[in-house]
Amino acid sequence: MAETRAIDVTEVSRSKAFGCDVVRFSFISHRLGGLETKFHVILPPSSDDARPAPVLIYLSGLTCDDTNIIQKAGAARAVAAHNICLVAPDTSPRGAGAPGEDDSWDFGTGAGFYVDAVTEPYKRHYCMYSFVRDELPVAVSAALGERVDVARCSITGHSMGGHGALVAALRSPGKYRSVSAFSPICHPSAPGCGWGVKCFGLYLGDDAEARKTWAGYDATELMLARHGMPAVFPSILIDVGTSDTFLESQLMPSHFQDACAKVGQAVCESLAGGRSPLR
Amino acid sequence: MAETRAIDVTEVSRSKAFGCDVVRFSFISHRLGGLETKFHVILPPSSDDARPAPVLIYLSGLTCDDTNIIQKAGAARAVAAHNICLVAPDTSPRGAGAPGEDDSWDFGTGAGFYVDAVTEPYKRHYCMYSFVRDELPVAVSAALGERVDVARCSITGHSMGGHGALVAALRSPGKYRSVSAFSPICHPSAPGCGWGVKCFGLYLGDDAEARKTWAGYDATELMLARHGMPAVFPSILIDVGTSDTFLESQLMPSHFQDACAKVGQAVCESLAGGRSPLR
Repeated sequence: MAETRAIDVTEVSRSKAFGCDVVRFSFISHRLGGLETKFHVILPPSSDDARPAPVLIYLSGLTCDDTNIIQKAGAARAVAAHNICLVAPDTSPRGAGAPGEDDSWDFGTGAGFYVDAVTEPYKRHYCMYSFVRDELPVAVSAALGERVDVARCSITGHSMGGHGALVAALRSPGKYRSVSAFSPICHPSAPGCGWGVKCFGLYLGDDAEARKTWAGYDATELMLARHGMPAVFPSILIDVGTSDTFLESQLMPSHFQDACAKVGQAVCESLAGGRSPLR
Repeated sequence: MAETRAIDVTEVSRSKAFGCDVVRFSFISHRLGGLETKFHVILPPSSDDARPAPVLIYLSGLTCDDTNIIQKAGAARAVAAHNICLVAPDTSPRGAGAPGEDDSWDFGTGAGFYVDAVTEPYKRHYCMYSFVRDELPVAVSAALGERVDVARCSITGHSMGGHGALVAALRSPGKYRSVSAFSPICHPSAPGCGWGVKCFGLYLGDDAEARKTWAGYDATELMLARHGMPAVFPSILIDVGTSDTFLESQLMPSHFQDACAKVGQAVCESLAGGRSPLR
């Protein structure tokens, strides 16, 4: 069900880069249990006859917040060139006060893992999955109005955020125009994927019954479940660095590649950073 | 006097970007009182017939270390295009244990201000001026050998680092092929420049006698002192954002512009980010 309640968005900061407006907003999030959350947008240069810009949601990885892609990627140049509005949300709720949320870098604050928690006490605040799907687009519309067209939306992300993007796109066919990912966590419920198993166990539960729900947040399992169905996208771009120290231990792109091959979903390789195992 | 002692350099990390090698090194610095210091280089793609790359030293601003420009600027693309080796040192010694060095963001750790301190107890470790001038090039040579030509060296920087670059270039005519700066602190000894006055007072002393030495680390005063001498460079590029909240209160580029006009030194304006007050 789409989010329909009105959202009051506050502008936190604004600067210029490559003719774009780089703006940070905050709002009180219903999906995150009434906590304030922040997001960044990079808006392409406006002109009187500019069409509303389509939206590309970028989901960041573990330890990040809404600032990382904005500060580090030089994305404004591409935003200006392609007239796309980049939207970067946070990676978790902040200040939930849940047990253990600030004890490690790979769980809790900075590590929402783009799931809707079902366990106590996390389920009240740790609902980044439906936050991104339903509430964030409404906030973007409230903030930017007719400058953007949130109905034309694509999604991408890095590492944990690449996982989030793939899962979002595969669970909601038709919602996103494209999906891509940079070094995504492709098979988080696989026994060897420490990051996924830790967060899924704490947010979703770890008994036999709970583990059945993990596949719903796992890109490889979601892809395998599409056996016999038409491909969701003409192609999916996955870009990985082949010398990434987490490649086999946590990211497992070959698992996703194999799943795509089984169900007939095309996957693009990218050579940026070296030879890609995805062909 | 140039640094001549041998320096043992250790490789800390290495990655690839746009065909460049992004490498972090550490060594024990004599000029910083025996403390370990780290620096980053971005080396352009090598080929069998590649000429040794000239060096561009980039000095970072307050609160930064050797990682900021590497992570945030997307500089590898330009390094590859122009076959220049970018070298990014730290902004201060780390772990000197001097009083107050970790109490504020604008003094001490992360805020060496590119001076050689003369006050106790800072003078043992806080010598970033001669560190950059003498010791860093030797360390770069030790790390990279014939891949680079440190005799062909230029210098640039941001904010406090722009100050450091301008001062380094004006104090050592002939040492650097070019100097430029992004939003530099142009007149740090001016009474209104809180950042400069604070650091100069603590590193150089604050009585009437000590204050006479401040001009030797002040780009505007150094330029004025060149009255009647030939211009040091064909031109100096200063790039500032005209909506920078620190423009008039701390950076004061118009002071440097006026000084250049008085002594006949050309200054380039840059329009990146908006209209520039430097014409």
